[in-house]
Amino acid sequence: MRPVLCLMGNELFNTLNEDAWHAAVGIELFHNFTLVHDDIMDKAPLRRGKTTLHERNGLTAGILCGDVLSIYAYDQLSKVKTRLSEILSLFNKTSIEVCEGQQLDMDFEQRDDVTIEEYIKMITLKTSVLLACSLKIGALLGGATDGNANKLYEFGKNLGIAFQLKDDYLDAFGDVTKTGKQIGGDILSNKKTYLTLQAFKNASEDQRHQLFALQRSSENNKIKNTLQLYEATTAKQNCLDQIAYYSHLAFANLEDVAVLDKRKEHLRTLAIYLLERDK
Amino acid sequence: MRPVLCLMGNELFNTLNEDAWHAAVGIELFHNFTLVHDDIMDKAPLRRGKTTLHERNGLTAGILCGDVLSIYAYDQLSKVKTRLSEILSLFNKTSIEVCEGQQLDMDFEQRDDVTIEEYIKMITLKTSVLLACSLKIGALLGGATDGNANKLYEFGKNLGIAFQLKDDYLDAFGDVTKTGKQIGGDILSNKKTYLTLQAFKNASEDQRHQLFALQRSSENNKIKNTLQLYEATTAKQNCLDQIAYYSHLAFANLEDVAVLDKRKEHLRTLAIYLLERDK
Repeated sequence: MRPVLCLMGNELFNTLNEDAWHAAVGIELFHNFTLVHDDIMDKAPLRRGKTTLHERNGLTAGILCGDVLSIYAYDQLSKVKTRLSEILSLFNKTSIEVCEGQQLDMDFEQRDDVTIEEYIKMITLKTSVLLACSLKIGALLGGATDGNANKLYEFGKNLGIAFQLKDDYLDAFGDVTKTGKQIGGDILSNKKTYLTLQAFKNASEDQRHQLFALQRSSENNKIKNTLQLYEATTAKQNCLDQIAYYSHLAFANLEDVAVLDKRKEHLRTLAIYLLERDK
Repeated sequence: MRPVLCLMGNELFNTLNEDAWHAAVGIELFHNFTLVHDDIMDKAPLRRGKTTLHERNGLTAGILCGDVLSIYAYDQLSKVKTRLSEILSLFNKTSIEVCEGQQLDMDFEQRDDVTIEEYIKMITLKTSVLLACSLKIGALLGGATDGNANKLYEFGKNLGIAFQLKDDYLDAFGDVTKTGKQIGGDILSNKKTYLTLQAFKNASEDQRHQLFALQRSSENNKIKNTLQLYEATTAKQNCLDQIAYYSHLAFANLEDVAVLDKRKEHLRTLAIYLLERDK
């Protein structure tokens, strides 16, 4: 998705150019570097259905392959011929934010007082800013003004937040025949998602006790009962409202970009696809 | 040492310039990034007498702090205003080699058929190429021709190999009153150094059995008896010969750099200090 956003950001302002391809490849390599290191921290055995690198080749190879991927990312970005220092500066800022987001995510696992605001900040850093950065780099390389490039950045950021909240929602309330994934994976692993945090926040004392008990339970009806509490506490509806809120912001940002409306059609279609998907 | 080499490489050709300072800082940040990740792979509890980052803050923080240091390294390098793409291309190539060297070093721990050639290749990648790269980047930013910059690169590479071999030598045959370090640390931990590999290579069948037995032993005289075998197999003398060989190459490379001889004085003094040190 990230390289595609970079290329679409570029095409919004100009015909696709070679610099945008280099940047798109660099961004995708960077994203893969973060996945390799994240999988080590998460002790994940699988990625895209295959054994993770550190699981197959050990911790050393996992760390070093990630490191080398990040160097390759910079090697691609360095091939950019226009506005290079501006591009690198944005990319570096974003990269550090992505690392901060991952650290927050890991910290949250050990905490039981995470607020909704902190959660939104974490997903913004971990996921959204790189989507936003991809669009903005593409735009800058297409000759966009700073103003237009920043609007597109905001579009990507808000789209990313809505996308991640939708992910949380589908994991709980998706249709297994459409997603192809087991529903309730986040609930089974007691992952801190928007839904859990909001449910705890809204819960009466009695509901709070039920939520705690469910987290410690491994009964068959753990998922079903948790989902009922997400509804009863209105966390489900709050989640849908937040998705709508950030989607609305994103589309408004896209409206604000000063290019011919028909040039925005593809980005608008992509955003609708990402936000209205049921899988 | 690395930022100093970068600045000295710069001053060899010109008065020190701002670009060289940015590069020097970037290189030092990169080096520290590799130390943070190496310490994780080596499970090292201490670095420079202090608790290592991963030991104090956990694996996640260790990996992420390393990642962020490498981004900061690139952020500094990106500030270079002249020959930027040339500098980045050399730096990226070197960075990947450093990672390869670390992987080889870790692989060697699991192998018992490491050759002298492989060992030299490993220390070249893990240590020497970054010293060489530091000098060359400084030189390029000082306006050196490619020819002169490459000579200086070779000087740094051979100096680095001699320096690392000297390190192996001093760990075994140094004088504790001068080094201030316990002698024989590498022997106690059965580290594969030039001396061990060369001793095994030269050993008679009887000596080979003795070396194996000593590696498995934890007796008080483990160090003393191993040192005797380093002498008896001529591994000690071979090591000194190799240090002299690579030192000679280094000084010849420095001679070949086409600048006024008196400008080379500081680099020559530094090289002599590094190679003739007894601590």
